Amino acid sequence: MRAGVVLVLCVACNKPRVDTAKETQALLETDRAWATQASAGKNVDSVLAYWSEDARVVMPGQATLQGQSAIRAMVTSGFATPGFHVSWSPETAVVSQSGDLGYVIGTNEFIVPDSTGKTSKLIGRYLTVWRKEPDGRWRCVLDYSTPSPAEVVAKK
Amino acid sequence: MRAGVVLVLCVACNKPRVDTAKETQALLETDRAWATQASAGKNVDSVLAYWSEDARVVMPGQATLQGQSAIRAMVTSGFATPGFHVSWSPETAVVSQSGDLGYVIGTNEFIVPDSTGKTSKLIGRYLTVWRKEPDGRWRCVLDYSTPSPAEVVAKK
Repeated sequence: MRAGVVLVLCVACNKPRVDTAKETQALLETDRAWATQASAGKNVDSVLAYWSEDARVVMPGQATLQGQSAIRAMVTSGFATPGFHVSWSPETAVVSQSGDLGYVIGTNEFIVPDSTGKTSKLIGRYLTVWRKEPDGRWRCVLDYSTPSPAEVVAKK
Repeated sequence: MRAGVVLVLCVACNKPRVDTAKETQALLETDRAWATQASAGKNVDSVLAYWSEDARVVMPGQATLQGQSAIRAMVTSGFATPGFHVSWSPETAVVSQSGDLGYVIGTNEFIVPDSTGKTSKLIGRYLTVWRKEPDGRWRCVLDYSTPSPAEVVAKK
């Protein structure tokens, strides 16, 4: 009887165990892989695959983009613009105990050409919220970025 | 024997159960209560209590503030400035299945006077990340805000 009870306990407790350290590492690696794809500036589909279907992108002074279709238009336009370049670097990731929700903070840099071809460098700080989806992949559901102080921009 | 096994199962499964709908509601109400305190613009301590000890505040073009001491200086300075006013309104909250991590998105408005007393209205969109702390209260660990598009600012 004792053996039977122990077995039942193990089955019951097994499910909610999440290795948060491992998930945090996976999330950081996902964000880094995403940054590599984005800064290559070539494959729209592979960059788009990191956002969830319902993702929201909120960039300084730009209209909120909601959903893959609106985000695809932004990425396509950026990649098609000569001189455009984006890069970012994660600083910290945190994952919930249940392993279904997490976030990443870091810094980013956009090089954006104007109509005359002259480029501006926009330095920012980002906070992305991620959801573990049914296929086991982390996907970005919220993508917020805000400008860094002028002195940080000037130093770069 | 059957009754014994059922009892053990219930004890084992009881702990991880979190009512995420209830927690989401609690988080939204916490953010609303915080906004009420902040827009009153009087009690620095009661506003400060909503951030965690290690909270990070990231506002457009401003240096990143890390920790209660830096945040206290910002709040104290704002509340002491005649004509300063802040308000915000949450739109959506989401909580992890484990109930330890959540986020809120919404819109905010800062009225900021310059040295001549003339005020500017800054409209933004915010994303705050929250952690359930050992005392059972949700506290804000990340507080990011980014400017809304010019047309939104002009309409207000």
